[in-house]
Amino acid sequence: MTIGLYPGSFDPVTNGHLDVATRAARLFDRLVIGVFDRPAKHLLFSAEERVELWKGAVAQIPNVTVEHYNILTVEFARTIGAQVIVRGLRMSSDFEGEFEMALMNKQISPKIESVFLMANLPFQFLSSSLLKEVVQLGGDITSLVPPNVLKALGTKFKVLQVTEQNLIRR
Amino acid sequence: MTIGLYPGSFDPVTNGHLDVATRAARLFDRLVIGVFDRPAKHLLFSAEERVELWKGAVAQIPNVTVEHYNILTVEFARTIGAQVIVRGLRMSSDFEGEFEMALMNKQISPKIESVFLMANLPFQFLSSSLLKEVVQLGGDITSLVPPNVLKALGTKFKVLQVTEQNLIRR
Amino acid sequence: MTIGLYPGSFDPVTNGHLDVATRAARLFDRLVIGVFDRPAKHLLFSAEERVELWKGAVAQIPNVTVEHYNILTVEFARTIGAQVIVRGLRMSSDFEGEFEMALMNKQISPKIESVFLMANLPFQFLSSSLLKEVVQLGGDITSLVPPNVLKALGTKFKVLQVTEQNLIRR
Amino acid sequence: MTIGLYPGSFDPVTNGHLDVATRAARLFDRLVIGVFDRPAKHLLFSAEERVELWKGAVAQIPNVTVEHYNILTVEFARTIGAQVIVRGLRMSSDFEGEFEMALMNKQISPKIESVFLMANLPFQFLSSSLLKEVVQLGGDITSLVPPNVLKALGTKFKVLQVTEQNLIRR
Amino acid sequence: MTIGLYPGSFDPVTNGHLDVATRAARLFDRLVIGVFDRPAKHLLFSAEERVELWKGAVAQIPNVTVEHYNILTVEFARTIGAQVIVRGLRMSSDFEGEFEMALMNKQISPKIESVFLMANLPFQFLSSSLLKEVVQLGGDITSLVPPNVLKALGTKFKVLQVTEQNLIRR
Amino acid sequence: MTIGLYPGSFDPVTNGHLDVATRAARLFDRLVIGVFDRPAKHLLFSAEERVELWKGAVAQIPNVTVEHYNILTVEFARTIGAQVIVRGLRMSSDFEGEFEMALMNKQISPKIESVFLMANLPFQFLSSSLLKEVVQLGGDITSLVPPNVLKALGTKFKVLQVTEQNLIRR
Repeated sequence: MTIGLYPGSFDPVTNGHLDVATRAARLFDRLVIGVFDRPAKHLLFSAEERVELWKGAVAQIPNVTVEHYNILTVEFARTIGAQVIVRGLRMSSDFEGEFEMALMNKQISPKIESVFLMANLPFQFLSSSLLKEVVQLGGDITSLVPPNVLKALGTKFKVLQVTEQNLIRR
Repeated sequence: MTIGLYPGSFDPVTNGHLDVATRAARLFDRLVIGVFDRPAKHLLFSAEERVELWKGAVAQIPNVTVEHYNILTVEFARTIGAQVIVRGLRMSSDFEGEFEMALMNKQISPKIESVFLMANLPFQFLSSSLLKEVVQLGGDITSLVPPNVLKALGTKFKVLQVTEQNLIRR
Repeated sequence: MTIGLYPGSFDPVTNGHLDVATRAARLFDRLVIGVFDRPAKHLLFSAEERVELWKGAVAQIPNVTVEHYNILTVEFARTIGAQVIVRGLRMSSDFEGEFEMALMNKQISPKIESVFLMANLPFQFLSSSLLKEVVQLGGDITSLVPPNVLKALGTKFKVLQVTEQNLIRR
Repeated sequence: MTIGLYPGSFDPVTNGHLDVATRAARLFDRLVIGVFDRPAKHLLFSAEERVELWKGAVAQIPNVTVEHYNILTVEFARTIGAQVIVRGLRMSSDFEGEFEMALMNKQISPKIESVFLMANLPFQFLSSSLLKEVVQLGGDITSLVPPNVLKALGTKFKVLQVTEQNLIRR
Repeated sequence: MTIGLYPGSFDPVTNGHLDVATRAARLFDRLVIGVFDRPAKHLLFSAEERVELWKGAVAQIPNVTVEHYNILTVEFARTIGAQVIVRGLRMSSDFEGEFEMALMNKQISPKIESVFLMANLPFQFLSSSLLKEVVQLGGDITSLVPPNVLKALGTKFKVLQVTEQNLIRR
Repeated sequence: MTIGLYPGSFDPVTNGHLDVATRAARLFDRLVIGVFDRPAKHLLFSAEERVELWKGAVAQIPNVTVEHYNILTVEFARTIGAQVIVRGLRMSSDFEGEFEMALMNKQISPKIESVFLMANLPFQFLSSSLLKEVVQLGGDITSLVPPNVLKALGTKFKVLQVTEQNLIRR
């Protein structure tokens, strides 16, 4: 049985991430979405919230589960028995960063393979950080995120406005 | 009448920005320079100061005005009646970021067009952030900024030294 | 009156080129599409054919005309009174080549401005050369070119098969 | 059963290609190496020779077969029942070309998935064309190609020198 | 006598940096490693520690010395009599930033030359920041840093865990 | 004594190449310009002509000599006793090709070092091939090449027009 791991920050999951997960779920017997919960950069959603948003988005895909982790990604892969790490590539990806990470992972754990799926055309230029900028300034992002994420963003930004916090990196 | 909007942080305006604005002012009936005043990253000059520096630099160009804004750039374009957003491209631009933004803008507001001018050769490698690093360390930038910006940078850094602040991102 | 020049090989015009021309025609009083007819690389269509294909594609846009030329692009711009050269940029463009050309043009003819429009999302990864590869191998490109170009490609490749020529660069 | 297709020109197969095929063969039940035999660019080896070189290189891997084809890659994938197309990525890959091709393939045949494997470190900068340049000038490439390819290159270049042909693109 | 300056943050020195220094030391009569000690970004090691780590790593190379500085790099070069600034390039370098800096340095100080050495293959994808991420999460980096740096990282992260500090940028 | 080798096609030498050679000549005791004379692509000038054009251009620099060669570049370096290969980098360079070549050279001949000089600003976007396109179409390139090259180009293109040859790649 082949198990794939799709790791990331996912702050929050977008329709682009969902598309990659849906396609990856067809390639492997089981797909685990791994939400990394020890990032130093300030994020909008907590690890628990990010896991819940993913769970709402993939509820209909039977062979996908969502977990959070705070160790090396290759270690987490070993822990859950995944042979493959999946990453999405967009034309505007940080390719160099992806290469650095994939080759470092290979060095630490030579048996775990990394495979890359290319984002489909409508998601080629969609990133979580741009999305947060747009929604913070009142832009309409209905078509870019799953319905439960849209709702969570609405709640989050209403709360943010009330408390006048400015957590989001522009 | 065609109105162009040239948006940015402009912290501070350089001779490269001024060159783009001068050329864009020839292409459109009216050019509005839009200084975005809600950036999360720490900037050297306030929005008001950045507007004043631009005003001093373009005082001789009759069809240019300077305003600040804190909404979505495409919304600001609509508010001022601009049909076109102008951006400068340098070889060392973040092309991917420009593509993401332009395509997001197109999605939010399909009628507003984005056009790009390429920086002229002497300004191909000039950025506001590198400029601030150099001036902070005492380098001579006389040829890189308008005279009023040079003066403002001198004042700003003298003040900074006195108060021993270290606001500037290296 | 502002006249724009949209120059290229256009072998053949695609829906991506047509989209750029349509948008550029709104920015300028008049747009001239310039088909360069002295290219050293082997092309599928003659300059005359390429001009005719463009004419069929832009017949409905009143302020657009199509001409061929075999001199320096900036010289051709001067000849027709164009102040602006328009180029489309795709994420998979040869940016460096575009920069080299734009800066060379600026050196030869400083008064002529170059402006760049970014390809819309559906055309970001569409190129004439990939298109010719696909159609040559029997792929369906109905949605990627104007109807008259589709027909011309059909005729051209039937002829090519009969004569067993192999003109197309893969 | 998941069948993968690893398509290319492979003129000739290198240790980098072999590494990608070996890793891909672990991900899928069966891997077909597809040698494209209608390329317009002048190649060193015929399609038949390139198939034989691959066969010699993968003889020890039980679930790999080698075939040549001269239709659209996605059509060939359909013909052999492959659900997945595999491509290797090197840091010095033509990423834009890979994106263009993957998105064109997706448009023609939405059900066939493309996955990318990153070349391992020793093969990051190894390309068939650079290899041919080096061997043509007498450089030692023993560590860069499978033994049967090394032998074939030796024979080919001895023949080439005798007949004073100069087929190889520098 | 030609003196070279190899400047950087080096937080901490890796085997990639050490390889560049070793090769540069063969090109020049004397090589000075310059540790910049006024960086705005939060670093793991102090300037003094970074100087000591370098000293331990290059103890065997007779014509290399290590110093820290907090002025413009070209000014520091002048101060120590260096005619040449050396930088390492990796495929995943920020080329644009390197170009901006080199051309700015040339403008400020035209007589000082910048030369670039390309990282050798094993170090092409090794960066100080990725290294710190990996070691912080418990990954084994024995082969990637000099022995004294490995020991210093062990001490540093044990201390960090005890005090539960989270200084490191992910 | 350190000997540097500056290899290339140089068809023809431009002011950008001349600038790199002038700067490299200051770094090494002796600089040999190596004109590669077995290129498969069609060139405008013969190897002998390209050597003569270089000789005219560097006549005033005492420690520079010009030679042609048709073996591996690293072999030629060994033959002439050069320890260092020099290459110019422009922002619009083929970086990936430069990396491939440098790492291949390192593998074949580990003792020979490659160093890179960055083109100065006025030459950042100047390439021999663009130059030939421009001059072929009658553009003025007086400021872009040494005087003897300008004269040779004039002669060459007059001849080409008379014989109606079309050797030049566009």
